[in-house]
Amino acid sequence: MAFINENYLKLQAGYLFPEIGRRVSEFIEANPEKEVIKMGIGDVTQPLVPSVVKAFHEGVEEMGKAETFKGYGPEQGYAFLREAISKNTYQDRGVDIPADDIFISDGSKCDTGNIQEIFGHDNKIAICDPVYPVYADTTVMSGKTGACQSNGHYEGIIYMPCTRENDFIPDLPGEVPDLIFLCYPNNPMGTVASKEELQKWVNYAAENNSIILYDAAYEAFISEPGIPHSIYEIEGAKKVAIEFRSFSKTAGFTGTRCAYTVIPDELVAYDKAGKAHPVKPLWNRRQSTKFNGVSYPVQKAAVAVFSEEGKKEVAEVIAYYLENARIMKESLQSAGYEVFGGVNAPYIWVKTRDGMSSWDFFDKVLNEAYVVGTPGSGFGPAGEGYFRFSAFAERSNTIEAMERIRHLT
Amino acid sequence: MAFINENYLKLQAGYLFPEIGRRVSEFIEANPEKEVIKMGIGDVTQPLVPSVVKAFHEGVEEMGKAETFKGYGPEQGYAFLREAISKNTYQDRGVDIPADDIFISDGSKCDTGNIQEIFGHDNKIAICDPVYPVYADTTVMSGKTGACQSNGHYEGIIYMPCTRENDFIPDLPGEVPDLIFLCYPNNPMGTVASKEELQKWVNYAAENNSIILYDAAYEAFISEPGIPHSIYEIEGAKKVAIEFRSFSKTAGFTGTRCAYTVIPDELVAYDKAGKAHPVKPLWNRRQSTKFNGVSYPVQKAAVAVFSEEGKKEVAEVIAYYLENARIMKESLQSAGYEVFGGVNAPYIWVKTRDGMSSWDFFDKVLNEAYVVGTPGSGFGPAGEGYFRFSAFAERSNTIEAMERIRHLT
Repeated sequence: MAFINENYLKLQAGYLFPEIGRRVSEFIEANPEKEVIKMGIGDVTQPLVPSVVKAFHEGVEEMGKAETFKGYGPEQGYAFLREAISKNTYQDRGVDIPADDIFISDGSKCDTGNIQEIFGHDNKIAICDPVYPVYADTTVMSGKTGACQSNGHYEGIIYMPCTRENDFIPDLPGEVPDLIFLCYPNNPMGTVASKEELQKWVNYAAENNSIILYDAAYEAFISEPGIPHSIYEIEGAKKVAIEFRSFSKTAGFTGTRCAYTVIPDELVAYDKAGKAHPVKPLWNRRQSTKFNGVSYPVQKAAVAVFSEEGKKEVAEVIAYYLENARIMKESLQSAGYEVFGGVNAPYIWVKTRDGMSSWDFFDKVLNEAYVVGTPGSGFGPAGEGYFRFSAFAERSNTIEAMERIRHLT
Repeated sequence: MAFINENYLKLQAGYLFPEIGRRVSEFIEANPEKEVIKMGIGDVTQPLVPSVVKAFHEGVEEMGKAETFKGYGPEQGYAFLREAISKNTYQDRGVDIPADDIFISDGSKCDTGNIQEIFGHDNKIAICDPVYPVYADTTVMSGKTGACQSNGHYEGIIYMPCTRENDFIPDLPGEVPDLIFLCYPNNPMGTVASKEELQKWVNYAAENNSIILYDAAYEAFISEPGIPHSIYEIEGAKKVAIEFRSFSKTAGFTGTRCAYTVIPDELVAYDKAGKAHPVKPLWNRRQSTKFNGVSYPVQKAAVAVFSEEGKKEVAEVIAYYLENARIMKESLQSAGYEVFGGVNAPYIWVKTRDGMSSWDFFDKVLNEAYVVGTPGSGFGPAGEGYFRFSAFAERSNTIEAMERIRHLT
């Protein structure tokens, strides 16, 4: 008799984005004449830049000719892409990450989920609250938790509240976790962590032989000096951290699919007898057994992001989204809202007024301004009373949406 | 303290293909003047066909324009591709698989590995011997086995020998498995299963509430009438089987990456209390949480396989490889070898002569004919004394390789 993985039954049915979709559809059906502006999901809207499109075409062309056709590629990714990432993303910033520590994949969502497979079931996981839902859901699926509680928290996960009071950087937890998910620039809050704050976490992980799973998918949006772009800028991080990076938000690859994970040679985890094992060979084994590499033309397209022309073009797109964020932030502040994020990240984290709940604010903004955002409480109970706007909309829609929200009473 | 998944430590270090690679490199280094012909790994050599290349370019073009740009796509795959698969692969053959039962992915290797995540740890797995190594390795990684034994078998897996005596179709196992991996046309043996034989397996699964994981990656190579192309041609299969299909070998997508998995609504698995749960929502939840869909231009390229022009072009490529297989089979037979497969599959399964071991034959063919194949024993102990040749080489190399092998003494 085939048995299901019963951990799946613990997952909450009412997932955030389907519920948003339901309410939006209902509104549109009842108000077909209203122009709804969507600033909910963190998906990009600007097309791939010309250098990337050119390289993508060249990759396709190669696949159509016998002399240049590529069959199975290396599971870890082509050396040309891993070397370009090593040079441009790390070495040029003074961070020594060799190409051999870089694993190309088809997405950070996949990687942050799949990474749990190489760690045992008895690891205690810590995640922020509010948080990107995938970290918790994949922890549940992998059997490391108990049931879901009434506040949406799962038994067995250590939740670390991020609030105005702690500047949205979690306090070191009382109970020591084995694996710690951190994400900066943060989704959903749009906030960043300083070198000092990350150093505190790296030291904590080192003292406890814990591992930090560092999601840096929004790194390209860091616009202020002094903010670390990589966890490996922090002393000692190569011994305690895995870093996840993506071309999705950096270069508009959400529909093109390319990302990467960094696992330094120095990083170890332990067996039950307390013996240390390097983590990199485990991930290499996982990837070469359960993955077959990223499409060759996509890897060609990705490497073009690091050409001189590509860098300029991609920087312009990032600047476009950051200008959206600036407009949104100023507009909301001038309307009297307390606003976080939006300077080094494409997300604006707004405090609702007069203690309004996240979902009540969602309904108000939808019904009266015809704008879709994301209720903060959907990311965890500590997000209650907050609301996330994404800066990925087109400029004219961004301005129009803010104009409508300013006039809400 | 971060703990590793200790199941990874059970995996055998000496994996087949690295060992082949080592011996080949050694030979080439010692004999730089010899022209080595590779017929080992099952990778295609013919380029993508023109219709596919054209559609791939169009998809890239769309990604470069704001009006047609695509961000995140549906995790399950675009409807245009799922509908084309449903119509061309299933409905046109009289098999009623709706588009909604089809999940697009980036590879069958990923799918056959990942599928285990939705099933509990206490499922007993059955696999053939010899077998594609991924089924066993992912079973080990997921914690469903004990240690590796001296013959390469893992404790806790039910191995089903496939030999000349049973026409390479396994006998129904004495101990009843919960999940049964079957692969036809078979890798590595190149053999097929008749309707009657598959009906026997479907009935067995139905009687025992087991699930068949049916890998049909080589379906496109079926050239004889009457051989089932899909497990769903078998009565009752929708209640007991998941099917894996791929564009890799069908249309040369090994470096382009696109595949799909079919899970009918009717398929159920059980919780410990014996309650039935539909399997499809579990896979949907797995995919939408840990996967972000296949690259849009790749899906555009894949759907072109089903255009009138695409069908013709792809059929020509398949015919090319099958003609290679015919040449190989006849050549080896005329040299006195007993040969299986190669008629409905791109693999030739050769019995070595005079009881020579698979690895001894590997060394002889490499050192005396400068041809690389795969030792049958690398796929499991029941493959000892056999050898696999792939029909994916170029024609002139295929003819040259066979000429050399014919003259071996």
